Amino acid sequence: MEKSDSMWKITLPICINAIMSIGAYFVAVRLIPKLRDMFIKANLYGIDMNKKSSDKIPEALGVVTGCVFLITMFLFIPIPFSDYIFNNVNFPHNEFVELLAALLSICCMLLLGFADDVLDLRWRHKLLLPTIASLPLLMVYYVNFNSTLIIVPKPLRSWLGFSVDLWLLYYIYMGMLAVFCTNAINILAGVNGLEVGQSLVIALSITIFNAIELSGDLWKAHQFSLYFMLPYISTSLALFKHNWYPSSVFVGDTFCYLSGMTFAVVGIIGHFSKTTLLFFIPQIINFLYSVPQLFHLVPCPRHRLPKYDRETEKLNMSVAVFKKSDLNSLSRLIMGVFRTFRIVKWQEDKEGTVTCNNLTLINFVLLVAGPMREPTLTTILIIIQIVSSLLAFVIRYPLAWVFYDI
Amino acid sequence: MEKSDSMWKITLPICINAIMSIGAYFVAVRLIPKLRDMFIKANLYGIDMNKKSSDKIPEALGVVTGCVFLITMFLFIPIPFSDYIFNNVNFPHNEFVELLAALLSICCMLLLGFADDVLDLRWRHKLLLPTIASLPLLMVYYVNFNSTLIIVPKPLRSWLGFSVDLWLLYYIYMGMLAVFCTNAINILAGVNGLEVGQSLVIALSITIFNAIELSGDLWKAHQFSLYFMLPYISTSLALFKHNWYPSSVFVGDTFCYLSGMTFAVVGIIGHFSKTTLLFFIPQIINFLYSVPQLFHLVPCPRHRLPKYDRETEKLNMSVAVFKKSDLNSLSRLIMGVFRTFRIVKWQEDKEGTVTCNNLTLINFVLLVAGPMREPTLTTILIIIQIVSSLLAFVIRYPLAWVFYDI
Repeated sequence: MEKSDSMWKITLPICINAIMSIGAYFVAVRLIPKLRDMFIKANLYGIDMNKKSSDKIPEALGVVTGCVFLITMFLFIPIPFSDYIFNNVNFPHNEFVELLAALLSICCMLLLGFADDVLDLRWRHKLLLPTIASLPLLMVYYVNFNSTLIIVPKPLRSWLGFSVDLWLLYYIYMGMLAVFCTNAINILAGVNGLEVGQSLVIALSITIFNAIELSGDLWKAHQFSLYFMLPYISTSLALFKHNWYPSSVFVGDTFCYLSGMTFAVVGIIGHFSKTTLLFFIPQIINFLYSVPQLFHLVPCPRHRLPKYDRETEKLNMSVAVFKKSDLNSLSRLIMGVFRTFRIVKWQEDKEGTVTCNNLTLINFVLLVAGPMREPTLTTILIIIQIVSSLLAFVIRYPLAWVFYDI
Repeated sequence: MEKSDSMWKITLPICINAIMSIGAYFVAVRLIPKLRDMFIKANLYGIDMNKKSSDKIPEALGVVTGCVFLITMFLFIPIPFSDYIFNNVNFPHNEFVELLAALLSICCMLLLGFADDVLDLRWRHKLLLPTIASLPLLMVYYVNFNSTLIIVPKPLRSWLGFSVDLWLLYYIYMGMLAVFCTNAINILAGVNGLEVGQSLVIALSITIFNAIELSGDLWKAHQFSLYFMLPYISTSLALFKHNWYPSSVFVGDTFCYLSGMTFAVVGIIGHFSKTTLLFFIPQIINFLYSVPQLFHLVPCPRHRLPKYDRETEKLNMSVAVFKKSDLNSLSRLIMGVFRTFRIVKWQEDKEGTVTCNNLTLINFVLLVAGPMREPTLTTILIIIQIVSSLLAFVIRYPLAWVFYDI
């Protein structure tokens, strides 16, 4: 009896959340085409550089699904607490605090993302503002858990002991997680449907992970995460429908920031930030591969999107062209390593002019597999994301059993 | 000893907040001119219709001071709880919940206001979204206080008893307060410096009220309110400096929404929503006076701003011109009352064409005092706001002593 009671307590709010999420999908999927003209009129549009036509495609539609997502969550707020509300005793303020802080951080990022799409913010804002937006979250972590202890993997225990308390470092790590997640999705972008596609795979992976862990001791944290993941997935699906090739709307930085912060929030509050990071393998690889250009060790053109060939209607790698003599010794060393492993296309002519592909995962796929149509490219990248998630589950479960006593 | 201890506890966080607010002023006042071009480039600008020149004036700069305000509050979050953090016992989650819910509602309105400035939202969104944005606030009110009892004024007690429990009605009232506050400031606007000027008077009035009540039993609620009012005032002052005649920036709906929600938030969480409303007397009068045009009982032109006379450089009343036969009987009745009290200028010609001033407080001032220069008009309107606040204090204190036993 007691067991079925607690099952009910765990699953009922999730079911209600799921139903509301389905409603949110239908609202979002109908709202997006209705609001298209409003965005174009407000000068929020782009031209799709990988298409023959030069129609105006409305930009930053992520703000619409973001708002539908937030509204769904606002309406959902009382549900997990209905038990306490009706019996009017011992309201769990500590859980309510988590929900509010999570929503506050997400709402801030939605505002920041939209401001970025409209105003074209500078890089320092893009790094500073997510850090500040995650402050309420860190404060909640501090007062509710303040557990900064990490368990050391078995092979390292003879040096470091069973556990290490990271203290302030752990908070810096969590603050940086928010910055990383928001920007990592934003730089793996540029072909129709990729931003939403990769985010959906990450969200689904987190959802599966939560569903597995729901039967464990920490079910509350995973229930909390599911409250956010389900409406996030449904509203993003609605966006995906309109953003898939050929895109009738663009998602904008708004969507990338919203997504990154949502993942960081559930990871931090749900105590599974390391697992969350595991689902970001392609983003981490893309970031590391991009480092030489992001930090201007190698010249970085303004756009690193693949190049559209109007004849074949296929996408080719885009390249950066520069003088070899412009590189400093660190750049030469790094690019030497890249060339040894053959992960760049590098051509030098007699005068020392170098042609090198732009260092993004998208161009890397084109380097390996050759020119292809845009939807094929997006599909391959999404499959990479799915395979990475499978790998993440292998690391999280069988391998973790080897390295930790669980 | 104990008394000075508690004085310290009340005033120390307020002092820290005040110092941070001064810092916020200097950040905001320097940031605004730096970001002007960014706004113009993003097509967020307007032409000042009451000036000879037709320079582009950047619009929606309220988002800048709003963000500085929010960032200040985010950095301030740990301060009121430092006592609990260092001693690590009995963290007051219920107070933390209030702070987070307040910030969440304000952040939502900032997002909505900015979206309105960029996208030009429809009226139904402007009414629906603030209601939803105030939901977390109402939830907090419910779990922390849930006091929906109101004390009946003495003369009515023989009919209604000592107190009346409004139940759900009280929540509807609070939800509507947020909608009213956000839109009331927005419709008393249109001359340089007025939006910020009136908001500053309201904010200063609330601050004085809080300071008076800080020595009472409910000091915590008023301390809470001051945490928001001080940085709000400082950032708005920075905006006022650039928005005063001749405006170098416009504040946008963003600022009006942010302001209205901030006032509603402190009123609701601080339990002084009725006093807050008292500081809105000019806005209430303006709203009531506008009702015939807002509800289209009388034709309403798209802009109701005063008309600029290029010759004299003065502002004149603006008018609506329509056929008398277009009015229905309700409209005739209301306008008849207005004409009896001589609060409209009403001219009919032989063919039944009516010329009537647009029904705003701004035009009413011009009706009574005649054409004048723009800064004079703004000054008069701000003086009206100040006089109304004095009246509000008279109603709140001497008169309340008569009608209630306090």
